[in-house]
Amino acid sequence: MALIVQKFGGTSVGSVERIEQVADKVAGFRDLGHDIVVVVSAMSGETNRLIELAQQIQEQPLPREMDVLVSTGEQVTTALLAMALQKRGKPAKSYNGSQVRILTDDAHTKARIREIDDARLHADLQAGNVVVVAGFQGVDEQGNITTLGRGGSDTTAVALAAALKADECQIYTDVDGVYTTDPRVVDGAKRLDKITFEEMLEMASMGSKVLQIRAVEFAGKYNVPLRVLHSFQEGPGTLITFEEEDAMETPTIAGIAFNRDEAKLTILGVPDMPGVAFKILGPIGNANIEVDVIVQNVAEDNSTDFTFTVSRSELARGEEILKRTASELGAREVRADSRIAKISVVGVGMRSHAGVASQMFEALADVGINIQMITTSEIKISVIIEEKFLELAVRALHSSFELDAEPTEESAA
Amino acid sequence: MALIVQKFGGTSVGSVERIEQVADKVAGFRDLGHDIVVVVSAMSGETNRLIELAQQIQEQPLPREMDVLVSTGEQVTTALLAMALQKRGKPAKSYNGSQVRILTDDAHTKARIREIDDARLHADLQAGNVVVVAGFQGVDEQGNITTLGRGGSDTTAVALAAALKADECQIYTDVDGVYTTDPRVVDGAKRLDKITFEEMLEMASMGSKVLQIRAVEFAGKYNVPLRVLHSFQEGPGTLITFEEEDAMETPTIAGIAFNRDEAKLTILGVPDMPGVAFKILGPIGNANIEVDVIVQNVAEDNSTDFTFTVSRSELARGEEILKRTASELGAREVRADSRIAKISVVGVGMRSHAGVASQMFEALADVGINIQMITTSEIKISVIIEEKFLELAVRALHSSFELDAEPTEESAA
Repeated sequence: MALIVQKFGGTSVGSVERIEQVADKVAGFRDLGHDIVVVVSAMSGETNRLIELAQQIQEQPLPREMDVLVSTGEQVTTALLAMALQKRGKPAKSYNGSQVRILTDDAHTKARIREIDDARLHADLQAGNVVVVAGFQGVDEQGNITTLGRGGSDTTAVALAAALKADECQIYTDVDGVYTTDPRVVDGAKRLDKITFEEMLEMASMGSKVLQIRAVEFAGKYNVPLRVLHSFQEGPGTLITFEEEDAMETPTIAGIAFNRDEAKLTILGVPDMPGVAFKILGPIGNANIEVDVIVQNVAEDNSTDFTFTVSRSELARGEEILKRTASELGAREVRADSRIAKISVVGVGMRSHAGVASQMFEALADVGINIQMITTSEIKISVIIEEKFLELAVRALHSSFELDAEPTEESAA
Repeated sequence: MALIVQKFGGTSVGSVERIEQVADKVAGFRDLGHDIVVVVSAMSGETNRLIELAQQIQEQPLPREMDVLVSTGEQVTTALLAMALQKRGKPAKSYNGSQVRILTDDAHTKARIREIDDARLHADLQAGNVVVVAGFQGVDEQGNITTLGRGGSDTTAVALAAALKADECQIYTDVDGVYTTDPRVVDGAKRLDKITFEEMLEMASMGSKVLQIRAVEFAGKYNVPLRVLHSFQEGPGTLITFEEEDAMETPTIAGIAFNRDEAKLTILGVPDMPGVAFKILGPIGNANIEVDVIVQNVAEDNSTDFTFTVSRSELARGEEILKRTASELGAREVRADSRIAKISVVGVGMRSHAGVASQMFEALADVGINIQMITTSEIKISVIIEEKFLELAVRALHSSFELDAEPTEESAA
């Protein structure tokens, strides 16, 4: 008998019928003797409906009032799911963030959790209840309602699992686990039975939408075993583990991640002097444009080239800022390119295996793909390539690193 | 400069446009220098939408979860109105019942207010904010969300006015005040500038939908000056006062109230013995059927007739129960009649004026209306008549008691 925190997102609770299906699933776990805390999002569409109401009144409503408004969405779901569980003979009690109490800072619409009071939840669980908690929301020291920002329900689930010392935190989604790469690109993509937190972080930050990166970080920090599963299909999903497997048994590469939402900005012929990187990126950061890959080539003739990537929607704004910087610095030219993509091989195994980089570059060369930029971390190698080669590159790497083979580990569930 | 609590119901905040209109009205009061606390209901239709969601899952959901569900409706309105006020340059803060904190008992879906903490609201008012409070809801000792039942927003407003020692509690509705009778029945019906609490209670209990009877009771108990006004028209409305005017100046009758939602059940030939009334009404009460008028005639030949009225929707159920009682008691017959109506003359003035009853009966006799049942209280005389004569009776009484004349008092606003 275990204590399990289960999180169901907006699509999984998007209608009364789906809420009933979720209740069936939760009731099944109760029948196995487990204690269950369920975290739910607002029914899909509800949050947008509320935001539209607000924007009919004000384009930029005060964040405090936005939180009061949108936090009602999850509260509705908690009540409906509690009813559906009671209908199945499973006593259940709903809680909003303030009732739990999930204490956050006062950064409305993007609050961070500080502390969770687990007393009432423990008492309810001991009394035989399923506890249903509204995701995405909390309350500040003054009693104001706060929200954690988009995707915050994953974070709520992980934080609750940490506070309750749950045996597992299960995130139910519309995929049945984490894959070696996107199955829409590579037919042979395989579900991973396990992945390490570090690998998951790299995969998540690369556009793998399975889990919010913040929730993964949180789970890693508090040692919460995290499992990704499909809401309406059976299966063990993917367990996100702490401990690396013995290196001998660890596959070198966990997966191939990619991101199409990248655009490249290059400033050519910048005088090579101390502080130039800051002078280029400072104004970009001040404009709240997030920068991903940054590459600076070695200087020649006291002049250097500096390239970085931004989200595509920010390209025009970034280019404008960079042109001003270029004229201030006396740089030669600014170039913008939105037809690029980033592709990464990710795996803790590469720490102990030499030659991953060369294998990657060789595989890309074999299919005639030119590499524009390279960055590496301890467990990830990323390259920027021309966008039109993306699918070809993913398939070549998936095959080169032998990810098409069946996973050898047993299911963990 | 006064402290005013203003309550706007579901129709008054039924759309973004209407919320903007309410914000205009509230902003106007702020510009006059008043401190304002606004109590709002859910946008019209929203509560029913939520109840329908619940009933797709369970016909009889647990009251605790119903309260969690429907209390979101008012919370949404508070946020939207606060935004609309801020857009008009009027700082505003929204509160749900739990945040205020409006402490209630734990009778979910029909909780009663025990205590209101006015500390935060006072602080916000002093800081120059309009305070927007969700009506209809509170929180019990354990932190569970409670609701006060239908129409509870009026009660919230009055209770807040009492706690804050407000100068006036204004209830905004779709009528511009309390009338001598229903203007749809009598063209000459007049808005009253003032009415006493006792009269208002009798009018409210008789189907005058302007105010919830519970809110009127509450206002009377805590000496809260209450005013009924139209949400979107200008005008002084009707002030509900404590003190009776000097009897010389008080009109004898304040108004003519009536109720079509009555049905009559008679049990004939009941053995006249102690406890018979309880034996007849006990099973009716146990079935949660509310009884209004009760009349028992004097016994003849050790046998009596017993008549009472119930809501029309309960007639069939009441008749069935009464038939079982009749056979147990050996009564002769049960009769049911749904084609009746109740009509009352109401006025504190009748305390000091003899002859109101005879004037009433004479006015009805003059137009040939037969009286089926009579009950009286200190400030009200009610009769049950055949429904088809209702309009005729109202007009006859309105004219007989000279209510068609203009009110003589000055507007109180």
